[in-house]
Amino acid sequence: MSFSPLIRQLIEALRVLPGVGQKTAQRMALQLLERDRSGGLRLAQALTQAMEGIGYCSRCRTLSEDELCGFCADPRRDDSLLCVVEGPMDVFAVEQTGYRGRYFVLKGHLSPLDGRGPDAIGVPELVQRVEEGGFAEVILATNPTVEGEATAHYIAQLLASKPLVTSRIAHGVPLGGELELVDGGTLAHALAGRRPIGL
Amino acid sequence: MSFSPLIRQLIEALRVLPGVGQKTAQRMALQLLERDRSGGLRLAQALTQAMEGIGYCSRCRTLSEDELCGFCADPRRDDSLLCVVEGPMDVFAVEQTGYRGRYFVLKGHLSPLDGRGPDAIGVPELVQRVEEGGFAEVILATNPTVEGEATAHYIAQLLASKPLVTSRIAHGVPLGGELELVDGGTLAHALAGRRPIGL
Ligand SMILES: [Zn+2]
Ligand SMILES: [Zn+2]
Repeated sequence: MSFSPLIRQLIEALRVLPGVGQKTAQRMALQLLERDRSGGLRLAQALTQAMEGIGYCSRCRTLSEDELCGFCADPRRDDSLLCVVEGPMDVFAVEQTGYRGRYFVLKGHLSPLDGRGPDAIGVPELVQRVEEGGFAEVILATNPTVEGEATAHYIAQLLASKPLVTSRIAHGVPLGGELELVDGGTLAHALAGRRPIGL
Repeated sequence: MSFSPLIRQLIEALRVLPGVGQKTAQRMALQLLERDRSGGLRLAQALTQAMEGIGYCSRCRTLSEDELCGFCADPRRDDSLLCVVEGPMDVFAVEQTGYRGRYFVLKGHLSPLDGRGPDAIGVPELVQRVEEGGFAEVILATNPTVEGEATAHYIAQLLASKPLVTSRIAHGVPLGGELELVDGGTLAHALAGRRPIGL
């Protein structure tokens, strides 16, 4: 004997969430059913609206329900700086350091073994954005992993002929980590200590 | 600058889940949006169906979308035993010990300071179920907490005049814990070592 079909379906569906295993999903399902059904329904509606309504900013490629995200639409930001990151979460990590330039969000990093080349992660769109944007500096803030370093190096080579400085965030960030897990102070130091990439 | 309104709404809604704080909710929201939107939509549908479709078994008061839950509807279970627990999660904990009698699910435990008396937790329905059920034994498997003990003692007093044995699970279960967190082996010992309640 086990949970009823609808409860089992809910437990199974909750496991789509990162870090949620069978036991945690059971506790979540029963707690919602026992203590907060209106909260469960609000979550259902928020999920539907988000999954169906959120696309990508046409300029920086971050998650956005509008044609232009808030970062791109804001006229007060510094148009001379472009910060390139691997994903939407990284935008918020960089934002917390006080950076107020523009962003470009790749779809992760180059990963030849998985068949993810420059086209798959949006490098052509980045190059086009750089050509149209008139930036003085492009800051490569991909993750400080082997793949993130390789991706930054690849992009730096592509941009070498452009009339701008291409920089890489300093290695204040711990090697082998993920950008979104770095504390704001460390990341602020890394950003301040960025250097031009010498090829 | 922060997340877009729909993303913020999703992050806020995810925090209804037990154990999910702001940072975890952010990771969940962005990961669903980036990697598994169909999984997010399945979760939304499962939540809606569960929150709206699941009620309580008319006989044992556990969560069920049918008039009678699977435990009550099964004709092969032992009709001479009734196990009383504090919530639906406990049913599955007890079930894993091999117990195959019937259940009655209270709405938690007596909590006079919160104004939760016998009526609020379903004691009248339990007494009615016992009177109609013809059980040889009622096993009180409320949590081994101060409140759970008090609830068991109160019910034992109510049932003292009935022609049946009222027992309490043995204190193999650690004091101060919650039943659903006890491992199956310990709970099996506690169930096997149950004793009649002497008043
Ligand atoms: Zn944008
Ligand atoms: Zn039932």
